[in-house]
Amino acid sequence: MTSLKDLMTLYQQRVNTALETWLPATTIQPTRLHEAMRYAVLNGGKRVRPLLVYLTGRALEVNPELLDGPACAVELIHAYSLVHDDLPAMDDDDLRRGVPTCHKAFDEATAILVGDALQTLAFYVLSHDPKLLSTEKQRLNMIETLALASGSRGMVGGQALDMVAAGKWLSIAELENLHIHKTGALIRASVKLGALTSPHLNETRLEQLDHYAKCIGLAFQIQDDILDLESSTEVLGKRQGADLVHEKATYASVVGVSEAKRMAVELVEQAVNSLAELDENADPLRWMANYIITRRY
Amino acid sequence: MTSLKDLMTLYQQRVNTALETWLPATTIQPTRLHEAMRYAVLNGGKRVRPLLVYLTGRALEVNPELLDGPACAVELIHAYSLVHDDLPAMDDDDLRRGVPTCHKAFDEATAILVGDALQTLAFYVLSHDPKLLSTEKQRLNMIETLALASGSRGMVGGQALDMVAAGKWLSIAELENLHIHKTGALIRASVKLGALTSPHLNETRLEQLDHYAKCIGLAFQIQDDILDLESSTEVLGKRQGADLVHEKATYASVVGVSEAKRMAVELVEQAVNSLAELDENADPLRWMANYIITRRY
Repeated sequence: MTSLKDLMTLYQQRVNTALETWLPATTIQPTRLHEAMRYAVLNGGKRVRPLLVYLTGRALEVNPELLDGPACAVELIHAYSLVHDDLPAMDDDDLRRGVPTCHKAFDEATAILVGDALQTLAFYVLSHDPKLLSTEKQRLNMIETLALASGSRGMVGGQALDMVAAGKWLSIAELENLHIHKTGALIRASVKLGALTSPHLNETRLEQLDHYAKCIGLAFQIQDDILDLESSTEVLGKRQGADLVHEKATYASVVGVSEAKRMAVELVEQAVNSLAELDENADPLRWMANYIITRRY
Repeated sequence: MTSLKDLMTLYQQRVNTALETWLPATTIQPTRLHEAMRYAVLNGGKRVRPLLVYLTGRALEVNPELLDGPACAVELIHAYSLVHDDLPAMDDDDLRRGVPTCHKAFDEATAILVGDALQTLAFYVLSHDPKLLSTEKQRLNMIETLALASGSRGMVGGQALDMVAAGKWLSIAELENLHIHKTGALIRASVKLGALTSPHLNETRLEQLDHYAKCIGLAFQIQDDILDLESSTEVLGKRQGADLVHEKATYASVVGVSEAKRMAVELVEQAVNSLAELDENADPLRWMANYIITRRY
């Protein structure tokens, strides 16, 4: 029996190695763009989304080789969204994961292109990856899933809702809708991509895993809101209290910190319950659900 | 017998109708983002890339229904690149196709998200389009082709090379390399996507069409450079002389206008020659090659 911490280290290394390979080398033109792409991705991120791909695949006894491509694809989408989100016209953040944001380390124009190229690379990986032995139908399903999750009805739509919401009071339903799009969609896609690598997947199992993903996605965001209030800049690797500065409605501000914590715990219980039919191979997914609300950064 | 002008009108309408359908409605959230996406795409663009998809499919006797998806996909990539290219941190243009650029009509943050969402939509269309009856293998090939053409080794790479080149003297080889990436890659992808919809495509035919696309792609850019110098802002729909203002090396500035014109004519001849084995269904592709160097905007 292994621990979640060991698995996190294992899969972080695994996805980092895979990302290294997919990212263009800095020896080829345009070198500065390629440097900036690597800078934005290979920066010691937590790799929560790739971890979900791997753990879902593991729960379904899928060979990890098949999971490298989908794990890279979701992380590339996540990384591109951070680069664009940090731009002066968006959140205007100068610190990310403890180091200067991409547009600070390079320049704004490069950061725009980095985000664009990282998004493209995500779809390239899913369409091209020779290790991904799933049927062509499953691959197309993965591409469609990732595109839906990251487009204007998913992650980018959530960012747009976030902009509109800045400085406004939101109801709990509006806040939930915002986060279902902004962070939830990509977390759900991570679990679905992991599941789609399995040749034995049936609808029921997919629905159980999807419900798990929905619950932890929302719990993850609630915890993020709490951490933004309670943690220090040093521990977070980004500016503490940034949500307050940007006048963003958060679970902590809308329902209060203690109610937010209660909601997160309930969501994690729901998530674990929806895995009831899965055997011990799904234990790391259960641990992951608990980790999400106990993490400090 | 029909004329290129008639076909251009026909296929412009056809792709506009298809784009209308794929673009998210302004009645659904986030409405402002969806408005801005429609503004950026449905603006009377020339639709050169979709036209190449349709004309290539026509040359291979493919049903136009199958070409709508690929035609939309290449135009969505092109449209996203224009939105990001016009941003203050990039070319800082306030006029595009005769109307305010997306970040002028809306705001910078929205324009960044619009570009991001349009790129995603392109891949969604190719993975999802139910009319696209090609085999799953061909669809994956299309997605891979579009991703390669638009990423850091294609269009976005070309934009990065363009940034590095600003204010510098370029050799003709460097300039050619820049344009092969910046505009050439997506034009080649348009022809390839059109070709990949055919069930009877063989390697030789694909190579002939690809050579055609390479030649007209470069001719298209050379003509753009010439027009930037010789045409008026009113006719162009964007600021005339913008290349000079941005101190960009162009064919006109590197080899002189008359040599640039000679090169463009030679490329068009090469393009037409590479279609020698194709029958009269390929005539519109031949007309298109000639149109590229005779157009005034």
